[in-house]
Amino acid sequence: MNDTSQALSRILNPRSIAVVGASNSFANPATNLMASIISGGYQGKIYPIHPREKTALGLAAYPALTDVPGEIDLAVIVVQSRLVPGILEQCGAKGIGQAVVITAGYREMGTEGAALEKELLAAARANGVRFIGPNCIGVINSHAKLDVSMFLYEGTAGAMALVSQSGSYITQPLPYFKRLGMNLSSAVSAGNQADIDIADCIAYFGEDPTTRSVAVYIEGIADGPKFIEKVKKTTVKKPVVALYVGGTEAGSRAGRSHTGAIATPDAIIDGVFAQSGVIRVDTVQSLYDTAHAFATQPLPRGNRVAVITNSGGPGTSMADAAARRGLLVPEFSEALRKQLREIVIPTAQVNNPIDLTMDFDLKRFFVDVPQIIINSGEIDAVLFYGVFGGTHGKRKFESLVDGPDLAALEGYDSYMSQMAEKFVEILAKAGIPVLSSSFTGIEDVPVARMMELGVPVYPTPERAATALAAMARYARWQKGGIS
Amino acid sequence: MNDTSQALSRILNPRSIAVVGASNSFANPATNLMASIISGGYQGKIYPIHPREKTALGLAAYPALTDVPGEIDLAVIVVQSRLVPGILEQCGAKGIGQAVVITAGYREMGTEGAALEKELLAAARANGVRFIGPNCIGVINSHAKLDVSMFLYEGTAGAMALVSQSGSYITQPLPYFKRLGMNLSSAVSAGNQADIDIADCIAYFGEDPTTRSVAVYIEGIADGPKFIEKVKKTTVKKPVVALYVGGTEAGSRAGRSHTGAIATPDAIIDGVFAQSGVIRVDTVQSLYDTAHAFATQPLPRGNRVAVITNSGGPGTSMADAAARRGLLVPEFSEALRKQLREIVIPTAQVNNPIDLTMDFDLKRFFVDVPQIIINSGEIDAVLFYGVFGGTHGKRKFESLVDGPDLAALEGYDSYMSQMAEKFVEILAKAGIPVLSSSFTGIEDVPVARMMELGVPVYPTPERAATALAAMARYARWQKGGIS
Repeated sequence: MNDTSQALSRILNPRSIAVVGASNSFANPATNLMASIISGGYQGKIYPIHPREKTALGLAAYPALTDVPGEIDLAVIVVQSRLVPGILEQCGAKGIGQAVVITAGYREMGTEGAALEKELLAAARANGVRFIGPNCIGVINSHAKLDVSMFLYEGTAGAMALVSQSGSYITQPLPYFKRLGMNLSSAVSAGNQADIDIADCIAYFGEDPTTRSVAVYIEGIADGPKFIEKVKKTTVKKPVVALYVGGTEAGSRAGRSHTGAIATPDAIIDGVFAQSGVIRVDTVQSLYDTAHAFATQPLPRGNRVAVITNSGGPGTSMADAAARRGLLVPEFSEALRKQLREIVIPTAQVNNPIDLTMDFDLKRFFVDVPQIIINSGEIDAVLFYGVFGGTHGKRKFESLVDGPDLAALEGYDSYMSQMAEKFVEILAKAGIPVLSSSFTGIEDVPVARMMELGVPVYPTPERAATALAAMARYARWQKGGIS
Repeated sequence: MNDTSQALSRILNPRSIAVVGASNSFANPATNLMASIISGGYQGKIYPIHPREKTALGLAAYPALTDVPGEIDLAVIVVQSRLVPGILEQCGAKGIGQAVVITAGYREMGTEGAALEKELLAAARANGVRFIGPNCIGVINSHAKLDVSMFLYEGTAGAMALVSQSGSYITQPLPYFKRLGMNLSSAVSAGNQADIDIADCIAYFGEDPTTRSVAVYIEGIADGPKFIEKVKKTTVKKPVVALYVGGTEAGSRAGRSHTGAIATPDAIIDGVFAQSGVIRVDTVQSLYDTAHAFATQPLPRGNRVAVITNSGGPGTSMADAAARRGLLVPEFSEALRKQLREIVIPTAQVNNPIDLTMDFDLKRFFVDVPQIIINSGEIDAVLFYGVFGGTHGKRKFESLVDGPDLAALEGYDSYMSQMAEKFVEILAKAGIPVLSSSFTGIEDVPVARMMELGVPVYPTPERAATALAAMARYARWQKGGIS
């Protein structure tokens, strides 16, 4: 592990944190960040640093970093930009080697800000401090229960790492991630990247055992050769998915005023990504969708997909979307069709998509059919549609005279959840990836269970097909084929 | 109004309904459909028809349609296929001119099923019955509180009509629509289209005053010339957005076994859509997103977009995505920038995107800045990011010692909702469309308020930009330009 990786490791796994600027006012972003650290369940020491406050959010506060009695691993700095160099001197005096500089007003503000940023970097170097930022929102490490960001991380410890030039994309999607069952390993808001940059973070996550995939949001790449060198070491081991938004005049102008990024033409970015093995996506939705699939499911061993559904429209959409994105949805062999035909109801369709239609036998849908298909050896991956439990039905039925037993609906939910567990077990045992979709969300018990079991449940069918296509391309590329 | 439109009007606005097959068993789809009709709040008479039951879900049941004392406008038929012709004869005898045939097992099942479908059509013709289906899921008309579908419609009376060869796409997304604030006018599951087809439905919604946009899911078009003739009469008046999934071998195979659709090559579909003025999309997500934008917002008068945000990443993404999709994100004039600069905080960026950054003055964000931009006359549409209320913060703050006043957070929600109301009012007055996005969902009070006010709030920023680009293209096409 090089020095930068060691610094990042300490930033993401600090034994103690000072929040410079935190008070008791929630109009103050430092206080808000410290509130996230506390509410996130961080177990180390937290030291608010404030010139006047004696306590902040119930914690003892100190006027300067040098006044803190214990050791400090990480200084989170949220003060006016003119005060930052002085704080870095305190870091030096106190022996604090790592910082996250949240403060904005640097390179993104033009020439004067760029000069300030140079001073900041010089002060950090002079005092032996490695840092993230400035103009960033913080970092998250779910495995250390560390949330230095504005929103609250409410997921479990996951395997998707985020690296972003936009702080918003680290913290504001946290409710979205929660709703979609997307769990993070870590997240870094890289901001203006005055010291540690995106390439450093990607290299770090390449080695991080808690991370299986890396999602990156980029407004500009300053050092292309460094990016390629660092990132390709990661992509041979784990997938890196990236969204680049600087390729249009409008995007480049927006990025420049956001993080001072100097945009690069799209074609050059495509070249940089190709040389470093990065998977490019074109929306933030696709960024999260794709990295989530990689973080939760094994890579497909080939291109052949079974579409398993209980609904014709979504099954057809998934089959069509998969085929358009380079996957094969092969006709099943006669032998396999015959085997399937023997167990399904007459209205069912067995020729990939297999569509069970209105079949209420959940074991057949979740267990028997998937097992037969997997045993056939005819497919490498599964696209699945058809998890919806009783939540929605309950709202429909509760006003009825002579309605069904609502307690039975809960039984239905729990039975479907059990079947979903068996389904996931069968696929995991065979090493076959599965991506699914459902129009009902996490409020639906069996959908939530699928998510807990690490199966992506996207809100619409094509999203599952699109993410799977990216997985198959990466698997081919990793084996040395052409992506 | 021609005969087919009259029949559709009666199907969607029946004064009374018979549900043929309904019992007290919820394993029976007829019962389930009737439960939706009841729970949906339908105000007309409902007659369950069942050979043995005396009542069904508390309603008096009758052995045959001809036994019902009152008049019947619509027969919903959910019995075995061999029984359907007999039911149609009862319709003839009773003078019921309209039916929805839910029953499956026709053309989609091969030659034998196709023969059955011919018999069905002959029986309907012989008895003077016009019908939707067979192999469909039903119809919805939110303005008549009519939900003949499996899930429960929980939205308000909206302006987006759905026409679909897949029944699932009419009913299973209802929870999804609710979450995203997408309200329907009506929906028709066209199934095998033995009598009334998709083109008929689109023509009907072209005349329907409650409908502003039509979203269509297509697996195959049997009669291209009819489609073009009927649909172009609608598209000159209101937008028709369509997803076609039969263009790949896999999609075509799936569609054939789903609704017996004979698929058409992609290039021919593109021609048919171009000649009829249909906007083609490539995912069901985009289908609903786009039609929802059209249903709720005015058309932009031109191509120039202002991106208003309080967050750099989403602002940059929206600007880049808009530019990639053919919209202009022009630099603001010096005069406009000067005016904006005078009222915003120093870290704000005013050169489109206008990014207010960490500015807690909601009036500035929702009212003052938008008003100045609109008054400038420099833009035709707004992409907006930055609605997130206190819901998420509350979960973060509630465990804190010395946390903020949680009641004040509710005050914040209600103040933000008020500001959102003013924002929508300003835009509506100017006739400027606005599409927005937020990672927090409908559980967030101000997000829900925006949705109620008819502003699309998509979960991710690029979805707003994509839908707006479709609106601008349609507006140009409608004016006689090239789309």
